[in-house]
Amino acid sequence: LQASAKAHSNMALIKYWGKRDETLMLPHNSSFSVTLDALYTTTTVAFDAALDHDILILNGREAEEKAKLKVSRFLDIVREMAGVNIHAKVTSQNSFPTGAGLASSASGFAALACAASKAAGLDLDGKALSMLARRGSGSACRSIYGGFVEWQKGVKLDGSDSYAIPVASPEHWPLSLLIATVSDKQKKISSREGMAKTVATSPFYNSWLNTIEEDLAQAKAAVQNRDLDTLGKVAERNALRMHATMLSADPPFLYWQKGTIAVIREVESLRESGIPAYFTIDAGANVAVLCEPSHAAQIKEKLLRLREVQNVIVSGPGPGVTLL
Amino acid sequence: LQASAKAHSNMALIKYWGKRDETLMLPHNSSFSVTLDALYTTTTVAFDAALDHDILILNGREAEEKAKLKVSRFLDIVREMAGVNIHAKVTSQNSFPTGAGLASSASGFAALACAASKAAGLDLDGKALSMLARRGSGSACRSIYGGFVEWQKGVKLDGSDSYAIPVASPEHWPLSLLIATVSDKQKKISSREGMAKTVATSPFYNSWLNTIEEDLAQAKAAVQNRDLDTLGKVAERNALRMHATMLSADPPFLYWQKGTIAVIREVESLRESGIPAYFTIDAGANVAVLCEPSHAAQIKEKLLRLREVQNVIVSGPGPGVTLL
Repeated sequence: LQASAKAHSNMALIKYWGKRDETLMLPHNSSFSVTLDALYTTTTVAFDAALDHDILILNGREAEEKAKLKVSRFLDIVREMAGVNIHAKVTSQNSFPTGAGLASSASGFAALACAASKAAGLDLDGKALSMLARRGSGSACRSIYGGFVEWQKGVKLDGSDSYAIPVASPEHWPLSLLIATVSDKQKKISSREGMAKTVATSPFYNSWLNTIEEDLAQAKAAVQNRDLDTLGKVAERNALRMHATMLSADPPFLYWQKGTIAVIREVESLRESGIPAYFTIDAGANVAVLCEPSHAAQIKEKLLRLREVQNVIVSGPGPGVTLL
Repeated sequence: LQASAKAHSNMALIKYWGKRDETLMLPHNSSFSVTLDALYTTTTVAFDAALDHDILILNGREAEEKAKLKVSRFLDIVREMAGVNIHAKVTSQNSFPTGAGLASSASGFAALACAASKAAGLDLDGKALSMLARRGSGSACRSIYGGFVEWQKGVKLDGSDSYAIPVASPEHWPLSLLIATVSDKQKKISSREGMAKTVATSPFYNSWLNTIEEDLAQAKAAVQNRDLDTLGKVAERNALRMHATMLSADPPFLYWQKGTIAVIREVESLRESGIPAYFTIDAGANVAVLCEPSHAAQIKEKLLRLREVQNVIVSGPGPGVTLL
């Protein structure tokens, strides 16, 4: 009745933005990501008949009510699948500092899905694990696999065709991603809220959806060909279009800070000086820079020189979720 | 054969973004602006049979080739209208420093249209002047009138229904506009080029056009009612959607600098503290802040405290073009 798992975070190169079902976490569009070896979560789940409520220890301390509720609801799904009805103690540790502006929900729910299902006696394959992780946080479904991963949006109402599939292994292409954190402020608008506002009010949202299939096909082909220029340009185009849908919402909203622009301009200037570097920006102010591993140290140094950059984490493609 | 005119710049609250005819300067969408009393251009045109080419003196020095060519082509239109075929000396002076990141084409071509047509013996009314100024720079057609001005896009191929009309006088509403300059760098992509790229490649452009009529109606009603909250919110929404069309172009482009975000965030924080302030951003990095005159000094001080803000010019609604 106890199991532990380790899962890595992922960075979307074709972004997930907008849900067609808030409960089942079904997206309006397919997405594509790279799993990150530098950022991971290790989680232990122990079901225990002696407990009268679920316990969540996050990075060594008892978690806030909101996080506890989210995890308990997720455990309810696992309990129902396994026919188990006892509470659990969940102990979860991130490899990266909390409050560093780095989202831990993808690695967190991927690790939790793996550990909780195993502890409950289930033996789920990758597809089932991906669908389960998706229920905790959409992007977590991609962290089940390592390397380059596609989340196929699916069309069915019950979500049974909405899960991730591996596209290329981490070894296929040791691309570097530099995650520049520029703000540790709590986001005023959560991703969930931002997506909902965008879907409901942006006149550009349908046009955004129409761009995805072509971008996704180009991104996957670029990964197969290890073509950084093509992948980088598609990633920039897709990320900026996602942010454009937020700017066009009513009322508009904007996750960027000064540092976001500073990193964008630095990437432009690197490229002008002949160093291939491309950026992507999640629903937040931080910027991830894609480059060849041979340029990573030099680019990290450049980014750290920017006044608004607090930290730069260098990562390569990481592995999928594993039981410990 | 000589005349002088003075015209004021204007700030669009509903932006002009995209041409349906590059030669006649016909826009895809109607726009709405306030003429600015603090920023103006004074221009003298003297047709002189002794000249063997046009001369352009801009802010006391001979202008660059590109500006000279633009003015000569504009004078050709006036010469054809008036049946005059001699060259002219044009002397033009802006009230604001060049290179301050402030566009002078609106006030410049409005003053030139007025002075050149008069010097050539034409006696044009407001509508004809507006259509003429439009040929030099689209937004110049709005600077013919003072106060709050609408540029009706028109639908005719010859542009004969594409001109500005006055909506409310400067005295109707002494709104303040604070223009915060954050960058004196030359824009890498001119407005003309940016519009053309957007029209050609943005999947969001048609949706942008579909938003204009409603925003325009709301903005005009807000001016009639002197309703700063409604006008400010429409202006922000419209400006951010214009910038969203650029972010969605292929390849994407972005006029913003760090200071752009700094001013946006300052405006948000002013509003949170109960001071009504709203922003708009032209095709560049500078930000204009709308507020009640009673708050202008306080907001100016706040903006000047931001590291990235170089200068703040306070303006009210200004008059239309006048012969001197």
